[in-house]
Amino acid sequence: MAENKIPYKIYLEENEMPKKWYNVRADMKNKPAPLLNPGTHEPMTAQELGGVFCEELVQQELDNENQYIDIPQEIQDFYKMYRPSPLVRAYCLEEKLQTPAKIYYKFEGNNTSGSHKLNSAIAQAYYAKKQGLKGVTTETGAGQWGTALSMACSYFDLDCKVFMVKCSYEQKPFRREVMRVYGASVTPSPSMETEIGKKINAEHPGTTGSLGCAISEAVEVAVKNPGYRYVLGSVLNQVLLHQSVIGLETKAALDKYNIKPDIIIGCAGGGSNLGGLISPFMGEKLRGEADYRIIAVEPASCPSFTRGKYAYDFCDTGMVCPLAKMYTLGSDFIPSANHAGGLRYHGMSPVLSQLYDDGLMEATTAIQTDVFEAAEQFARVEGILPAPESSHAIKVAIDEALKCKETGEEKTIVFGLTGTGYFDMVAYEKFHDGKMDDYIPSDEELAKYAAKLPKMD
Amino acid sequence: MAENKIPYKIYLEENEMPKKWYNVRADMKNKPAPLLNPGTHEPMTAQELGGVFCEELVQQELDNENQYIDIPQEIQDFYKMYRPSPLVRAYCLEEKLQTPAKIYYKFEGNNTSGSHKLNSAIAQAYYAKKQGLKGVTTETGAGQWGTALSMACSYFDLDCKVFMVKCSYEQKPFRREVMRVYGASVTPSPSMETEIGKKINAEHPGTTGSLGCAISEAVEVAVKNPGYRYVLGSVLNQVLLHQSVIGLETKAALDKYNIKPDIIIGCAGGGSNLGGLISPFMGEKLRGEADYRIIAVEPASCPSFTRGKYAYDFCDTGMVCPLAKMYTLGSDFIPSANHAGGLRYHGMSPVLSQLYDDGLMEATTAIQTDVFEAAEQFARVEGILPAPESSHAIKVAIDEALKCKETGEEKTIVFGLTGTGYFDMVAYEKFHDGKMDDYIPSDEELAKYAAKLPKMD
Repeated sequence: MAENKIPYKIYLEENEMPKKWYNVRADMKNKPAPLLNPGTHEPMTAQELGGVFCEELVQQELDNENQYIDIPQEIQDFYKMYRPSPLVRAYCLEEKLQTPAKIYYKFEGNNTSGSHKLNSAIAQAYYAKKQGLKGVTTETGAGQWGTALSMACSYFDLDCKVFMVKCSYEQKPFRREVMRVYGASVTPSPSMETEIGKKINAEHPGTTGSLGCAISEAVEVAVKNPGYRYVLGSVLNQVLLHQSVIGLETKAALDKYNIKPDIIIGCAGGGSNLGGLISPFMGEKLRGEADYRIIAVEPASCPSFTRGKYAYDFCDTGMVCPLAKMYTLGSDFIPSANHAGGLRYHGMSPVLSQLYDDGLMEATTAIQTDVFEAAEQFARVEGILPAPESSHAIKVAIDEALKCKETGEEKTIVFGLTGTGYFDMVAYEKFHDGKMDDYIPSDEELAKYAAKLPKMD
Repeated sequence: MAENKIPYKIYLEENEMPKKWYNVRADMKNKPAPLLNPGTHEPMTAQELGGVFCEELVQQELDNENQYIDIPQEIQDFYKMYRPSPLVRAYCLEEKLQTPAKIYYKFEGNNTSGSHKLNSAIAQAYYAKKQGLKGVTTETGAGQWGTALSMACSYFDLDCKVFMVKCSYEQKPFRREVMRVYGASVTPSPSMETEIGKKINAEHPGTTGSLGCAISEAVEVAVKNPGYRYVLGSVLNQVLLHQSVIGLETKAALDKYNIKPDIIIGCAGGGSNLGGLISPFMGEKLRGEADYRIIAVEPASCPSFTRGKYAYDFCDTGMVCPLAKMYTLGSDFIPSANHAGGLRYHGMSPVLSQLYDDGLMEATTAIQTDVFEAAEQFARVEGILPAPESSHAIKVAIDEALKCKETGEEKTIVFGLTGTGYFDMVAYEKFHDGKMDDYIPSDEELAKYAAKLPKMD
């Protein structure tokens, strides 16, 4: 099809939307390492995991075999409310950069949660409802995941209890209020409602909390209350499975116009968006059917891929969760007050960690001021005000497009625009006022946390 | 086509998007009354208007003859970045209400301005650029129009000076920051930068401003600075013309599935969204080709259609603008602190005023608490967190759907969902905390302002 026939936005028809999720683990030669029991260091059984997670989600978590898993009709119907998301040809950005590169982005921000998080939230809420549970607990940092889960729980009439990192709870009252619209209860973490919360408050008076700490609280409440389970918005295998809908739609849209990307770029915190976006492309790569350059972009302030260790570590501060083998900075690592809240996690998806370790993808970092410069440049020509997280991918996509300008190569670049920045205006204000924090941890600092990784047998 | 074939979201293809705006005035037997010179009370000439507005926009303002006006290619291209907007079948809301009615909404919130305002902003910026102007001035209340204009000016590299009603400037710092992302300068109004601002500040020390006052300041700056013109986001004929893209897309989407609406509902402040949504349907009605029930919904706190006078009045507090014949509460009327900021204007579009006076449409009011209850009910089943303005239409759409439930009628209801409420969380918080203001002005209060309407010859 001729170049000029490609519309600004490629939308799939409703009947072209994915009916199955793609499980990249089925095609991986080296499977991701299993979750381990933190006491025995033995692989977690389905029964053990069932105390924390919903039954069917446990099956999905452990499933390294099935290449495709049916998306239940109820979830497909919910997806139809806000999906398919558009694959946008960034004609205006290309024009502005004067690059021969062709730039596309998959925009996941057109729903009230403001991000891709809803793709997994609705799946996790569905299975909780199916199991007859009363409700679910979770943690949230910047608030996108908490908002998404609130929306999903409201839809299925499930109770939703969110532990929100205290500094975000105080700095982002509007996010909290959106969750309230959807009927969720939101508690600042660390709270005095859990044992681990009381302990952390006692040890660190006045602490403003962290994701790892909020996870511990949410897990504790789920385990202690009958009819409740814990759900998580990133890192886990099941989350990457649900998020494969992003990549499947992207690939279907590209295939419609016979477009083959050269480079695929995504921001990476816990890995949910990146893992979802790249999954079918990585599948082709694993099966030897095609090759792509795949780039993960993480903040220089929280560089788990690029400067972390590939090792078993705790997923939370309270050390109540299973051990996961992943690229990690150490579960005690507290990133600086980087405003890309969704990228401040100390670890990385075990699936992506294995793929990265096997040399199947690259990783790079970006400093915050550069990220916001790219964000503003993008907003002014493409209209959309991007989330700080997504803007890490924008920054590297622009860099790659400018390289093409130098070399004259007409590469096709696809990146994930995971969400909007409407609730991040404090960060934009700091950027405009020249008060942005560009802290990069020193080698000594990282070594200190790495030394505290759990000793394995 | 069978009922079950209708998708959740009807998207037009890019080549099905409107290439012309529809000018409803061409089909009106009784044309809207002309704008008058406030000094002479004679109809404003194109030359007089040209001192305030861009040349081509003046032509559009005065054009009562041409049924269709070409959308310039540059504007069509910009529209492609965020349009077509989806026409959504509210399956989930219908299910929740257990109504036989079929409910559709045209969703205009999927762009960074968060509303339909961008449709006219980009047109006005385009004509300003084409005329070789340096920049434009405007006012904004809630901030949606200011944001839209900032985006449009950034795209065409035009200077953009926004006077923001002081109380909004202080209460909505995030809106201000979004405008800053797009390079606009934002001044709280009344300011000390204009003669009228100084006068109002002197007469009303500590005033938090009003739309009428911000308009006066913006007009003053446009008139006094060479290379600048004033632009406005509602009320004017040209704005309704640009906004006809909403209705044209809606009609094209409905026609694709052979759907004929019975009732069309929109919120009404100055009339930009309602006028745009209904335009092609009203055209059919005026030409005797079809009949529709058309309902305008205004806040009980600012009831220009339902309790105002149809008379010539000033559009601004400073009385520097032309006189317009419209349903009005009087240019001194300051609505209570109703959070549906975009519906707080004292007057109403002259086109809609004439159509309403001719009995071609109905109007009703809603009180704020009811509006937020409808908003929350909608958000929980349809996902989208609506703007308070749009929620007036939701409220009446739900009421009509519930009437169908009683009578068993399978009516088709279409309403305009003009935007999202992401920057209105303070209002949602007040609603949740039971602190919502449901003030309704008394007859005595309205009579006091009506008595001050300008005396015409």
